[in-house]
Formats: sequence, structure tokens, C-alpha cells
Amino acid sequence: MPDQILDCDSSDPVTMGWMEGLPPPPDKRIRWADAGHMRFPTHRHAYSRMREFLPTARVGRDPAAVWNLPTALRDDLDDVSFQALDDGRSLTWAQARNVNFTDAVLILHRGTVVYERYFGATRRDTTHIAFSVTKSFVGTLAEMLIAEGRLDPQAPMGDLIPELADSGFGDATLRQVMDMTTALDFSEEYTDPASGIGAMSNALGLTPRPPGYTGPDDVFAFLPTVRKNGVHGQRFTYRTCNTEVLGWIVARTEGERLDRVLSRRIWQPLGMEQDADFLIDTSGMPFAGGGLNPVLRDMARFGEAMRLGGMLPSGGQAIHAAAIEAIRAGGSKDAFAPAGYAWLAGGSYRSQWWFVGGNHGAYSARGIHGQAIYVDPAAEMVIARFGSHPVAANSAFDPTSLPAYKAVADHLILYG
Amino acid sequence: MPDQILDCDSSDPVTMGWMEGLPPPPDKRIRWADAGHMRFPTHRHAYSRMREFLPTARVGRDPAAVWNLPTALRDDLDDVSFQALDDGRSLTWAQARNVNFTDAVLILHRGTVVYERYFGATRRDTTHIAFSVTKSFVGTLAEMLIAEGRLDPQAPMGDLIPELADSGFGDATLRQVMDMTTALDFSEEYTDPASGIGAMSNALGLTPRPPGYTGPDDVFAFLPTVRKNGVHGQRFTYRTCNTEVLGWIVARTEGERLDRVLSRRIWQPLGMEQDADFLIDTSGMPFAGGGLNPVLRDMARFGEAMRLGGMLPSGGQAIHAAAIEAIRAGGSKDAFAPAGYAWLAGGSYRSQWWFVGGNHGAYSARGIHGQAIYVDPAAEMVIARFGSHPVAANSAFDPTSLPAYKAVADHLILYG
Repeated sequence: MPDQILDCDSSDPVTMGWMEGLPPPPDKRIRWADAGHMRFPTHRHAYSRMREFLPTARVGRDPAAVWNLPTALRDDLDDVSFQALDDGRSLTWAQARNVNFTDAVLILHRGTVVYERYFGATRRDTTHIAFSVTKSFVGTLAEMLIAEGRLDPQAPMGDLIPELADSGFGDATLRQVMDMTTALDFSEEYTDPASGIGAMSNALGLTPRPPGYTGPDDVFAFLPTVRKNGVHGQRFTYRTCNTEVLGWIVARTEGERLDRVLSRRIWQPLGMEQDADFLIDTSGMPFAGGGLNPVLRDMARFGEAMRLGGMLPSGGQAIHAAAIEAIRAGGSKDAFAPAGYAWLAGGSYRSQWWFVGGNHGAYSARGIHGQAIYVDPAAEMVIARFGSHPVAANSAFDPTSLPAYKAVADHLILYG
Repeated sequence: MPDQILDCDSSDPVTMGWMEGLPPPPDKRIRWADAGHMRFPTHRHAYSRMREFLPTARVGRDPAAVWNLPTALRDDLDDVSFQALDDGRSLTWAQARNVNFTDAVLILHRGTVVYERYFGATRRDTTHIAFSVTKSFVGTLAEMLIAEGRLDPQAPMGDLIPELADSGFGDATLRQVMDMTTALDFSEEYTDPASGIGAMSNALGLTPRPPGYTGPDDVFAFLPTVRKNGVHGQRFTYRTCNTEVLGWIVARTEGERLDRVLSRRIWQPLGMEQDADFLIDTSGMPFAGGGLNPVLRDMARFGEAMRLGGMLPSGGQAIHAAAIEAIRAGGSKDAFAPAGYAWLAGGSYRSQWWFVGGNHGAYSARGIHGQAIYVDPAAEMVIARFGSHPVAANSAFDPTSLPAYKAVADHLILYG
């Protein structure tokens, strides 16, 4: 973090007073036109106010079927300690919360909320951008359609979406797209505006376009421009454009827009307590790779439903068990290893979920700047977390978050 | 309606397929950049999807305190008939629904839902732009602050908001702003982009700004530019900029943004069933004069709370009784009459509510294109309605809606 001066406390968005005042003074304003919603430290405010900067679709809950989460908060978790993976220093859970610029964090143990904290601009009812945690929702929807026999994971994308036949996706299978083993000319470099992700962000309208922009106006126009670069199916490379393709085929198979599919297939059956906001482009297509804004508790519910094999505590199979089994089988470790994720040794990537390695069988939905759902089957634990770390890449905070999750899991196993 | 070719059925937004398809074909797209969200017939889709075109703030409900509306639908209301005010033709309620391009309509009788219909792109859980019905929420908030002794209705606006001291609002009293008896150089001509409302819409970002625009960037920069034109306090003239000033003083008095005030003071105490979306400008200020997007049932709840003097059926005074009394006293008929509202003879305007004249003591929140809350104390009836009429001004559909409301009221009085 070479440019970082402010730490978690000194960059607290409430203390900094972003957008406060009637009117807010010029130096307290955050503007989409300046991309202030996507830059530290102003993003610490904006990540829990994305709908105030961008058009959004509503992912509707079912008000008559809210999944009640029993709560029994415990006070022994803040002191759980662990060694950071990078420099070996000892930290407590409470300290790591701060080091990692945590906006909100909740821990479920055997389905009960045992820890729940909101910081800065967040509250229980504030939605927060989940970034690539969104991908795991979309990957799960795709597995549901496969489990129902409505999608063939071995079908080439050019057959499934004819508009992509001549693109780099054309001869990739759905499975390769889901597991991100496609070989594409698309760089996922968040700090480079000329990268693939930068160009896609312009097409999606997430960030202001340069003057005279004549590029693609929406994601449907962007995806066919992505070219092939190598041989599909050999190794994992994380590229968000795969998830946009996945969102497209999920929506086309269901015959309705992705936000509505997500509402009908996951948000309502899982008894989410709040509607979610989904960033959309000018075509109305949600940003499948990173545009979902749920509340923290609803992220936790999704993790718990995964842990329970799709069956809710109230009974009833909310998500097809075979879909969840297919995900929990994990991905190819051989395909994953060359990608060189130092803190995920022995891990894999399957259907838009990360398998973190280790002996707990833990898997995670992971988004830039610290968004996470972390499911630890051995500890019967689910963690949901929002963050606004100055650095996008998970490698910046994995060393102080993954061992923290593991330590809390071990603590829960040991002390119940 | 000289340019209108399509009627209600042939302009049904679902039939027309706006924004449908993955991707939607070019001729089915609605773009904010083209102001398609504000133009017939595309607005028939957009009015119930405004958050998909513009940044919005969330007006949060209290999930633990939803006001249950008992429901006993009756089938005798569609056939209630009346004479149109303009040409005297006979219409039934069901026919008028169509003539008026109704998107959704609900009738409460003694607090019970006796009629509830959703058409086109609307459902029970879709928010819809309320346009100037928003004003009545803001006017009620201002009356609540007056009732609490926190605002003096006789204070000049220049004292209350120093930034407005040199503007046309400077020597107007709060009461004059609330009752729209200010004399200002601001025209409310919806079809003229050079009008006051057109300039304010640009400042608010509701419509795309012309190339090279250098005007005000938000409502706080716009309002001080409004000049005086005449003598305050003499006659009613409907000008939306008054409500922006009112929203400003309400927010400043409460020390928080208008969307949060509305949530805390009305949305939560009244047990609204859904969050509302509130259009905001680049400063984060909600469009107090017309930017609220609630669901239909929550508009009905507000009308019912007015009818009950602020006391909810469950007990508890949700809104200060004195505030509601002050509104229900009505405004000056002498100040109102010269404005020449042919269909509101004997009416008045008070604290952002319209009094429609006649012997029922009915009053209404009214928004362009057919938005309404209509409270008839004599019939113990409240009507909430969303519309997407091709013409903005209420004068286009008052002749076929006001007598329809009255006829249903008379029917309920007669048959119980």
C-alpha cells in the first residue's frame, strides 16, 4: 500500500463526513463523474451507498417468508489470536478487523448469529457492494440450471450464445467459463484503465467514460469483442468477463433478466430480510461479475444455505442439493496451482467459488476490497464480511483475514 | 392530447416490451441520455423503474412494525358510474381507469382494502414515481416541525436559510412557501425546456443536460438563483421550487438528509411495507418536489394516517395531531381561486395538499401524469393511484378522475 497514509480509524467515513451537510461542502463531496465512489478513502462511504451513485435494479425479497436467524452473541471471539501469513506477527480477531478495513462482519455458528458488528457508514439494513461475491451467486444459479438438466456444462458457449460464436468464448465450454479456465485476451488489472476490466467497466458505465468514448455501450456489446489467447481448459485465470457470460446464459435460459432470476431462485426462497441493489448497465443487464449490493445478513444466509446443502432450517430444499454438491466437490487443484495464489495453497476454483485449501474443507465467495462469504463445514461456521480496504486485490488482506477465519473456526470447534 | 396516437391498452408497457430481451433490441431501449424515461409511451415502463435510470436514496421502513392492512375486496366498484366534468359523458370506474392511463389503484374504506389493481409494469411490490405527491409528504414534515415548535411559519426564509436571503425567497415566510403563495420568476411549464422547472430539472440531473452546460450542479446551487416577481402572500401559484426550499429547511432543522428524515418521521412510524426510492442530485439531496417512489400501499397508508388524524389503527400517535389539524384546516380559497383550476372550484392549497372543494371535505396529494392520494373524510375513504398519462398536467385527467373518486365515495356512503 505505497500511497496509503490513512489507517482504518483515521479513514472512518463518518468521521470524515463524506456527503454530510446541506449542502455538503465541496471537499466532502463524492462524485461518480470523478470516480470518487471507486477510490480510497471516499469509497469507504460509497461502498455502502452505491445506489446513490449509479442506476440499480431491485432484487426483491419475499416479505412473507423471512429466514429468522437466531442470535446469541458471544464475547470470546474478539480475543481469538492468530499469526499473519506474511510476517508472522500475532493479531487478535479485533485487531485484524481494523487492519483489514472491515465495514461489517457477522459470524454464524450452527446457524446462530454469534458475532455481528457494523462500523463506519454501515448498519444492519445498509446494503454494501459485494463485488465478486456476486459471482458466487451467479455460479450457483448456473449449477442449479445444470442440476435441472436445462444447461449442459460441456456445451460450447458459441452454441449456447450465438452472439459469442466468433469471440474468444466461442469454443470454450460452459464448465470452462464457470471454472474460469478459459484462455482470453483480458487482463484483470484493477489499477490499469487500459486493462480488460477497465474497458468492461466503461462499457458497463461503472466508471466515467473518457471524452469522445466510442466503445461498447453495454456488456452485450463488450463481450463479443473479447479475443481468445491460448488454449481453454488448461489453467485457472481469474477474469471477470467469464461471469458476465455466465450471467447472460443464466438469464437467457430462464428467459428473464438476471436480477429477477436471482430474486425468484435465491432471494425469495432463502428468506432474505432485505431487497438487494444490483448495478445495471444501459441495457438493464446487471453487472454479474460484481454488481450485487446485499445486506450483510443476507450474505450470511446464502453461506448458511450452502453449508446446509440447500436445505433451510425451516425445512424445504431452497436450492437443488445436486447443484450444491457439484460446487462443494471443488475444482481442479492442478488447474489452480499455476495461478500462484500464495495464501490459497492446495486450493481450487469451482463454479465461481474459491476453495481455500487446508483440512476444514472451507470455501469462500471473495470480492475485492474485502468482501467475503466464508463457509467452514468442519466448524459449522459461516462468516460474512464487508470491507473497504485501500487495495483491491485479496492478496493485500488474505494474510490477515484467512488465518483469522481459521482461528475462529478452530476456537468454535474447541470450545463449542 | 393532440400528438397522442396510442391509447391505454395499445401503449401497455408489457405489450410494448420495453427493455425486454437479452440484449433488448435498439427500438425497445429506454435511455436516460435521451430522456426516454420522461416521455410517453416509454415512460409507462420507466415510471415504475426510476431507480434503473437514476441514482436513488433508500427511504427505509421498519421491518418489525409493518401496518397490516386488512383486505376485503368487493366487486361492486368497477360498475360505479359518473359524468365526466368536461363533456358530460357517462363512464364507469373501470372505464375511467383506462381513460386515465392508470398503472395501479387501491381503495381503502374504513381502513380496509376494498379494491386493489395493478396494471402494466406494476405489481404490489413495485415502486412508482409519485411526482408531486412527494410534496405532501414534505409539507406534512414541515407541519410536524411547526407543531413541535421547532419552526416558525411566520419566519422569513432568508432568516431560516441564509443562503436564500438575496433570492426571491428571502422575504417570503415559511407559510407562504408551504402554501405556494410566493411570487417568483419561475414557470412550471413541463413542455418548455427553458422554463423554471426545466432549468431545475437540469440542475437536479433528472434529465440530460445540454452540451456545454454550465448551470447549477445541484438544487442548492439552483435555488438562490430564483428571483422574485411580484408580491408574496397574495395568490396561489403552483411552483415546485417552493418545495425544494421546504425540503431544505426540513432537513436543516432535523440536521439530517431529507430521505433519512422521511424514513425516521414517517416511513418507520407508519409501518410502511416497503422501502421507497428517492431520486437525488449530485449533492445527495432528494428531489423534494417530486422524486419519491413508494409502493401503492404505502401511499394509501399515508392517506389513511391523515384521515385518522395521525393515530394508527394499532394505537399510537404516529404523526403529531396538531400538524394534521393544521393541514386539514385547508388554505385560503381567495388566494386559490385566481389560479383558475376549473375542476377544483371552491378548493384551496395548504401545506402542499390540495383541497378539492365540494361537500365531502376531500383533500388530495397530486402528481403529474396521474399520481394521487385522495382522502374523503365523509366517506371514510382513501384512494391511492399511480398513472402514466401522456399529458403531465392534472387538468388533462381531472375531468375523468375527480368525479370518479366522488362517485365511489358516494357509493360507499350509500351502500356501506
